[in-house]
Amino acid sequence: MAPQLDGYFKQVDLMADSFISRLRSAVAIPSVSADPDLRPKVVAMANFLEAELKALGASVEKRLPGKQPGHPNLDLPPILLGRYGNDAKKRTILVYGHYDVQPALKEDGWATEPFDLTVDEQDRMYGRGSTDDKGPVLGWINAIEAHQKAGVEFPVNLLMCFEGMEEYGSEGLDDIIKEEASKFFKDAEAVCISDNYWLGTEKPCLTYGLRGCSYYSLTVSGPAQDLHSGVFGGTVTEPMTDLVRLLATLVDNKGKIQIPGLNELVAPLTDEEKELYNDISFEMSDLFHSLGSETSIHLNKEDTLMARWRYPTLSIHGIEGAYSAPGAKTVIPAKVIGKFSIRTVPNMEPDKVDELVFKFVGAEWKKLSSNNTMKCELQHSGNWWVASPKHWNFSAASKAVERVFGVKPDLTREGGSIPVTLTFEQATGKNVLLLPMGSSTDAAHSINEKLDKRNYVEGTKLLGAYLHYVAEEAQV
Amino acid sequence: MAPQLDGYFKQVDLMADSFISRLRSAVAIPSVSADPDLRPKVVAMANFLEAELKALGASVEKRLPGKQPGHPNLDLPPILLGRYGNDAKKRTILVYGHYDVQPALKEDGWATEPFDLTVDEQDRMYGRGSTDDKGPVLGWINAIEAHQKAGVEFPVNLLMCFEGMEEYGSEGLDDIIKEEASKFFKDAEAVCISDNYWLGTEKPCLTYGLRGCSYYSLTVSGPAQDLHSGVFGGTVTEPMTDLVRLLATLVDNKGKIQIPGLNELVAPLTDEEKELYNDISFEMSDLFHSLGSETSIHLNKEDTLMARWRYPTLSIHGIEGAYSAPGAKTVIPAKVIGKFSIRTVPNMEPDKVDELVFKFVGAEWKKLSSNNTMKCELQHSGNWWVASPKHWNFSAASKAVERVFGVKPDLTREGGSIPVTLTFEQATGKNVLLLPMGSSTDAAHSINEKLDKRNYVEGTKLLGAYLHYVAEEAQV
Ligand SMILES: [Zn+2]
Ligand SMILES: [Zn+2]
Ligand SMILES: [Zn+2]
Ligand SMILES: [Zn+2]
Repeated sequence: MAPQLDGYFKQVDLMADSFISRLRSAVAIPSVSADPDLRPKVVAMANFLEAELKALGASVEKRLPGKQPGHPNLDLPPILLGRYGNDAKKRTILVYGHYDVQPALKEDGWATEPFDLTVDEQDRMYGRGSTDDKGPVLGWINAIEAHQKAGVEFPVNLLMCFEGMEEYGSEGLDDIIKEEASKFFKDAEAVCISDNYWLGTEKPCLTYGLRGCSYYSLTVSGPAQDLHSGVFGGTVTEPMTDLVRLLATLVDNKGKIQIPGLNELVAPLTDEEKELYNDISFEMSDLFHSLGSETSIHLNKEDTLMARWRYPTLSIHGIEGAYSAPGAKTVIPAKVIGKFSIRTVPNMEPDKVDELVFKFVGAEWKKLSSNNTMKCELQHSGNWWVASPKHWNFSAASKAVERVFGVKPDLTREGGSIPVTLTFEQATGKNVLLLPMGSSTDAAHSINEKLDKRNYVEGTKLLGAYLHYVAEEAQV
Repeated sequence: MAPQLDGYFKQVDLMADSFISRLRSAVAIPSVSADPDLRPKVVAMANFLEAELKALGASVEKRLPGKQPGHPNLDLPPILLGRYGNDAKKRTILVYGHYDVQPALKEDGWATEPFDLTVDEQDRMYGRGSTDDKGPVLGWINAIEAHQKAGVEFPVNLLMCFEGMEEYGSEGLDDIIKEEASKFFKDAEAVCISDNYWLGTEKPCLTYGLRGCSYYSLTVSGPAQDLHSGVFGGTVTEPMTDLVRLLATLVDNKGKIQIPGLNELVAPLTDEEKELYNDISFEMSDLFHSLGSETSIHLNKEDTLMARWRYPTLSIHGIEGAYSAPGAKTVIPAKVIGKFSIRTVPNMEPDKVDELVFKFVGAEWKKLSSNNTMKCELQHSGNWWVASPKHWNFSAASKAVERVFGVKPDLTREGGSIPVTLTFEQATGKNVLLLPMGSSTDAAHSINEKLDKRNYVEGTKLLGAYLHYVAEEAQV
């Protein structure tokens, strides 16, 4: 039986202004996790959420992950564990969000005060954290409140995990998720994370895959200190010459990785998977708009999306230790560290990727017969993630999108990584759904971050509707 | 007739402590030309020299080159033009030096206060500017004073040009040299510059050649702004991939420049020139000591010195716009600027070098068939310089070295450039000699800059002796 949602939807519309006020109060707290000086504001934001939840009858526990690594006197902010409802006859759904934000200064080029939510004539709500991730977090709270005011029974037991260090590496989160998997989270039957974005601006999406990332450094060193190119040029084997020659072997400018064996690790494209790309609402002009140029590798939508989502890529990020300032300096750098990373996809095992990278770089280094010293090291790696978009968690979300927006959602993957996704999947063993609220133009992490009023209000409806559908969806 | 120098030498020895005091007073003035806040100290240093010279009966004029480019309210320090002696029967010799110094802070790692001349047990005198170039500048003043005190007639008319912006591009100097060539400098018959270093620590040298430098930037751009490699990796043609591939084509790690036609511009090695290398006091261990490693390209002294002095070299200095900080950042840089330079030698015409570079880079770029944009530009260039070491200016200096140190000097060239050398040669049309005072271990431009007491005291004798020999040397 299709859930009865009209009363809830009407109530959300009635409360739209009050929900915007709630977002304004949240944005006003500059909970910047990267800035130790603003740590009290991150804590204040946790307290704000705790108070809002408790006022609605939810229970809230705090987990304190301890001190921040490298900062022996700086407490990490609490991880909030919330529960709303405890009815054994209902499904239990675990949702995640973060209440910290990226840094923001008016001087960076913001058109408005970043911590003062400002709504323009086109109902775009500008403010740091509006879309990433305060809007979505408040969406869950709004949903609870609207159910209460509308007198509609809340369809599930809702478990909430809200952290305050996401924008700074989610320090301390993994251990607590693993620990609580059999405790606070033990009843969870599915997980929903709202912390990414629609592919475009009109059509919602459900996200079922993320690429992993293996990040390497490639160090070439020789002389004990930087040298003057006039005095030593011609007499010393220059580390920079070796390094650019090594970096040039890794990938061609059409994106083809040159490391033997690497592309063979990629899961073959099935007809079924290929089908999924046809319907996706995406144009090459969207890509060109994001790039600010037409310098794409591929010429059509399908190849572009597959290159972004389901094929690996290798990017060279830069060189540490060489001359990087404007102007001209005649230095021979003594030790240079090239940085590159590979975005990984199913079925690339990170250990196998490392092995192939080290083997290839070692062989190319040998070809150079240099008397410098070379060292290739893994800096960090995170695995890719892919879920089945046919799981009941996804089909419920799909129905909710159709009900609220009148369209089937795009089924998307993302090129980047959201490491907590994999952590939740592995710790709980349950299906994880990424259900974004914001759109592709929201500029999370940039100046003038915004959330459209439509995305916030209809998004609140969507989160509530999702809970109704997921409560009823047959397990398949 | 060999000059009678014993009285002068004895006087220098007697006055050694007083000369060291003079150097201590000069080092105490932090005349850092790069720091606008210290500009009054640069002017104070000019005033100090002016007073010392006038006290000895020299006349001093000041030339003011105007405001510093880019600093409409900052006066460039004066260029001091000094004259000691005006006897039509004597030769007139023009000497050059600079009274400004590199920046220095104790925190940079100095063992002593950088602006407090500190003499250790081995008679090494530590202090910023001790060897570069206050010691040599004071050497000329010491020589005048010792002649007076010893009652020895000064053998030449001495013209002096002391500038205060050498460590910051010699702003304003060239125009004044050109203007004064037919005025203040018009009697000059030869030029002597003391602002470089011995090849080692024991044996003085005369320097007759310098390499030029043509510095290029290679810009590759595509997207309008930096991109996240997770989101855009695989979909965009990455400028960094193009750039490292281009840079890798320029030179191999044995120092061989890969630009067709470039090596063919180099003047062939004659037997006569080859001869000069045999006697030079230099060991591969000296190079290894300077490098702090044994990562040399060549295995013997002759090849190493020729590679440094008489063959071109290409160094890649770094990349602007890419990620250069420590740590790991997953950025796709939107616009990257590679910096490289070619040290040029006879007979490479700078214009021809530019032409070959642009042609080669353009052809390599075409091979990449990239949809990014590439631009290769000359940043600055300075021509090489080579003088005849058989000129009377050099033979006089050689005799002076033999007289003071008991050895024939090394005849050296340098890999770097001292642009003022070429300016003086071209403006006056006279032979220019580089006659260094300091040794290879003096660490000019580094922390713990020093000048050995021996180099200062015997160097003062050398400058005076040179003036005696150059006064008598037959023109050939
Ligand atoms: Zn986020
Ligand atoms: Zn974020
Ligand atoms: Zn100097
Ligand atoms: Zn210098």
